[in-house]
Amino acid sequence: MHTLDQLNAMPDTDFVAALAGVFEHAPWVAATAAGARPFETVAALHAALMRAVETAEEDVQLEFLRGHPPLSPKAMTDPALTAESRSEQGGLGMDALGGSLARFETGSADYEARFGIPFITCVRRMTPPFVLRGLEQRLANTKTEEIAAALREIGFITRLRLVDRVSGPGKPRVAGHLSTHVLDTARGKAAEGIRIELFREGVLIKDGITNQDGRTDEPLLHGEPLRMGRYELRFHVEDYYAGWPNVTDPPWYDVIPVRFGVAEPEGHYHIPLLLNAWTYSTYRGS
Amino acid sequence: MHTLDQLNAMPDTDFVAALAGVFEHAPWVAATAAGARPFETVAALHAALMRAVETAEEDVQLEFLRGHPPLSPKAMTDPALTAESRSEQGGLGMDALGGSLARFETGSADYEARFGIPFITCVRRMTPPFVLRGLEQRLANTKTEEIAAALREIGFITRLRLVDRVSGPGKPRVAGHLSTHVLDTARGKAAEGIRIELFREGVLIKDGITNQDGRTDEPLLHGEPLRMGRYELRFHVEDYYAGWPNVTDPPWYDVIPVRFGVAEPEGHYHIPLLLNAWTYSTYRGS
Amino acid sequence: MHTLDQLNAMPDTDFVAALAGVFEHAPWVAATAAGARPFETVAALHAALMRAVETAEEDVQLEFLRGHPPLSPKAMTDPALTAESRSEQGGLGMDALGGSLARFETGSADYEARFGIPFITCVRRMTPPFVLRGLEQRLANTKTEEIAAALREIGFITRLRLVDRVSGPGKPRVAGHLSTHVLDTARGKAAEGIRIELFREGVLIKDGITNQDGRTDEPLLHGEPLRMGRYELRFHVEDYYAGWPNVTDPPWYDVIPVRFGVAEPEGHYHIPLLLNAWTYSTYRGS
Amino acid sequence: MHTLDQLNAMPDTDFVAALAGVFEHAPWVAATAAGARPFETVAALHAALMRAVETAEEDVQLEFLRGHPPLSPKAMTDPALTAESRSEQGGLGMDALGGSLARFETGSADYEARFGIPFITCVRRMTPPFVLRGLEQRLANTKTEEIAAALREIGFITRLRLVDRVSGPGKPRVAGHLSTHVLDTARGKAAEGIRIELFREGVLIKDGITNQDGRTDEPLLHGEPLRMGRYELRFHVEDYYAGWPNVTDPPWYDVIPVRFGVAEPEGHYHIPLLLNAWTYSTYRGS
Repeated sequence: MHTLDQLNAMPDTDFVAALAGVFEHAPWVAATAAGARPFETVAALHAALMRAVETAEEDVQLEFLRGHPPLSPKAMTDPALTAESRSEQGGLGMDALGGSLARFETGSADYEARFGIPFITCVRRMTPPFVLRGLEQRLANTKTEEIAAALREIGFITRLRLVDRVSGPGKPRVAGHLSTHVLDTARGKAAEGIRIELFREGVLIKDGITNQDGRTDEPLLHGEPLRMGRYELRFHVEDYYAGWPNVTDPPWYDVIPVRFGVAEPEGHYHIPLLLNAWTYSTYRGS
Repeated sequence: MHTLDQLNAMPDTDFVAALAGVFEHAPWVAATAAGARPFETVAALHAALMRAVETAEEDVQLEFLRGHPPLSPKAMTDPALTAESRSEQGGLGMDALGGSLARFETGSADYEARFGIPFITCVRRMTPPFVLRGLEQRLANTKTEEIAAALREIGFITRLRLVDRVSGPGKPRVAGHLSTHVLDTARGKAAEGIRIELFREGVLIKDGITNQDGRTDEPLLHGEPLRMGRYELRFHVEDYYAGWPNVTDPPWYDVIPVRFGVAEPEGHYHIPLLLNAWTYSTYRGS
Repeated sequence: MHTLDQLNAMPDTDFVAALAGVFEHAPWVAATAAGARPFETVAALHAALMRAVETAEEDVQLEFLRGHPPLSPKAMTDPALTAESRSEQGGLGMDALGGSLARFETGSADYEARFGIPFITCVRRMTPPFVLRGLEQRLANTKTEEIAAALREIGFITRLRLVDRVSGPGKPRVAGHLSTHVLDTARGKAAEGIRIELFREGVLIKDGITNQDGRTDEPLLHGEPLRMGRYELRFHVEDYYAGWPNVTDPPWYDVIPVRFGVAEPEGHYHIPLLLNAWTYSTYRGS
Repeated sequence: MHTLDQLNAMPDTDFVAALAGVFEHAPWVAATAAGARPFETVAALHAALMRAVETAEEDVQLEFLRGHPPLSPKAMTDPALTAESRSEQGGLGMDALGGSLARFETGSADYEARFGIPFITCVRRMTPPFVLRGLEQRLANTKTEEIAAALREIGFITRLRLVDRVSGPGKPRVAGHLSTHVLDTARGKAAEGIRIELFREGVLIKDGITNQDGRTDEPLLHGEPLRMGRYELRFHVEDYYAGWPNVTDPPWYDVIPVRFGVAEPEGHYHIPLLLNAWTYSTYRGS
């Protein structure tokens, strides 16, 4: 971890070394940006690094993109995989694609055959079904469109890597936020003690209990990008209603599911639930 | 099928024969009620038949209850099973209990050992998990409580059988009603063209598309008891939103699930959905 | 009152006489349309009458428009006012304009000076403030635009007069509909016994009590155009809540006001209220 | 203004002098409580002062209560009125009772005749109609009940006076809080730029504009008791909707009124509005 001030002050070779893991196998990127120092913000540093890539000749860009490992379960065993890529791809869990994995393998092969580069996408911003969907959509691009698309993903990947290793002012926003709030509109106050589960593409990834403010003690998700995809909150209200008048058997509501799609990995998502005996409502709040 | 007038006017032996399938293996029930004719309503006829059972001596009641077949998948092959029982139990699909079937078999055996009668319940009014739950709850009854509970179920069973074979005024209510209504509160009118699926204990039992009134052309369920249990409506709204301004990718809502519990098999359940871009609400309507 | 069949079959002179009150002081309109008989619908008859006016030479149209009385409280005492105009204008209650009446009188005078015809509007479709607003907006028209605007109003006026005196198939829609529905989402059923008041531009015009279906026994408004303007429903819920748990003193809600604007005099407006202890919502339903 | 530490440490006579304005014309109250020092919290100090009054003999209590000025517009000119009472009563605006002022005067006279003490109530916690209502309700008390009621009001009055002149830990809660929040559920974010008016018993007491968080920059009411009574928020949404698709003329909503009753002067009231094209909802939030 370096401070921005340190990076601004160190010799060019140290600067290149310090950022070695950000742009894979491409020290020339940092070398090009080094001359533009000092940077006032981390975001400006990242922009300068990206500019070095974006303004390179197309054959240099292609060479750079070819230096990236293919995104694939099989590739995970490739000894050439950088630690950064291994960690990012390992977190993806592409094996979650199940029966669609073959589609992904075929699509990847088609992609490489068509564009001559591996399929690159910022896996920390998407669920596996969205990685697959992105692959299949991008197969329809022209080569020029696709180089731009791949560089856009390189921008997301390196932005995340950079904020992990540089501290300082003006960090670009890389994390999203997901929270909830349960209001009991029968009593006019927050609903306490409700167990909440959060699923992403059918997988339970978090749970919590509402406190006396009707919120979980910490946000459901924060500190990293929200993966684009389909989520579901499940509010377990059966016990909450237990003491109410006129509760039926079985109760009218036992679990209240709220499905929603995350489209902005760096977005702020607040999803309140207004709860009552025979009604509820939900909305995207602020 | 007889009219109530016909039943009121026919000789006692014909009356007993006409109602033979209602109270299994127990012509004495109809014979006892025959003297109370004429009945003004079908409900009064049913009440008189039940009174004959309820006021019988306990050993007669037990003999009557013992005449009922055990509720069991195995029993379905028993040649002694009446056509009525076979049809009712076949519709239940106790095999839907899956891994819990063994619990049901054990509970049934415990029940017979404890009370000396087969476990009787009106399976047309419950989903299989509720049949199992009812069995396990009733195992905790005293014998007196349990005879009363079994006769209450006999009441439900025979009420359904009676309305199937007698026409006339004052039929008791045996059917429930389940309907929905989708309002588009962004446009201030009914939402047309939304596909709706209805699940019961996880099994799809009905689907439909909302018409220009925002309703399905016919109620989702009607004409028979709603089985007590857990239901889920799934409103497929993704295509509905397609043309809206500011639709994200993925869309905020694609499928809106609404889970609810049915406690009154003969009840009227109306479940509207108020739909908007970033919010929805649902309630039990009227 | 004539049937459409009668009108289709009668001699031209009788036809003209039968429709004498529809187009004021202008028997030539009916005379022109007479030749297009028979009409299959009342709407087709009205369209033919309007076509006679719309296709007349401009000086004939102006002469026809000049035959209409000025819309004014003072004009009410003019012996030349036809019974139809007197009744329509009397119902308007232009005196409700209060302090704005002078603006209306000035505007009317400006209008006549500018266009050479009296200001004509279908007062049965608007509240007085909207009549005034319409006058002031139309003062900005060119003469050609304004003749079209005046004829459009003549269309509304005569459509209403025609359906009052001709029965038969295909009547044009001239009436709006305003209704409400109160749901108690704490109990999951209709809310009975709630007094509702309906105000239009601050004047109480209707009240009612919700029945066991949560509706008023008859629609709040129906059978005539809804006057364009600003309405307010006031739901008196204080007594309804009286027996609820945790009712505060004063109660959280005593009167729930819902303001809304009517833009379509022939529209269908349904305004439910979903009521609960500490929340309510309302929407335009269907 | 004294600190609690100072009050704990000063001689008895200074202590009594320092609290002179809290219990009117009754230095014996502070003198009694002085011996119980030191107090750990301001609330404990107040409780000790009240205990001195509550445990006094009834004739001493009555003498104390008789020392309070009558609550009356006329009394405002009485030179014997303490500055504290004058300020508190002046803020009440009993003249807001209008036609009901005579009822208040009559009730006050009846009260004094019946109980031999002036009618005492903590006017900073109520709107004038609630002062009148309280008077008329308390006329039905027995003398014992009424002395207790008067002392309860003395408790509220002196608690407010005490926190105005003593700083230190453990201040009793004397202020309420009223805030709002407008969410645009058509866009899934806060609604900015909506003008809000707050009325109390028909009188405009505050207005504001929602900021980019959908809130007013400061709470609508805070820092003092909320007067028990009837409030109305008016959300001016007409301009907010102006650019929306399918806006009608007149618009469906122009002003959204939300009436509510405040029962707890020291309570926290948060009243969100969920806004959409053809629907809105409101609730008591947290």
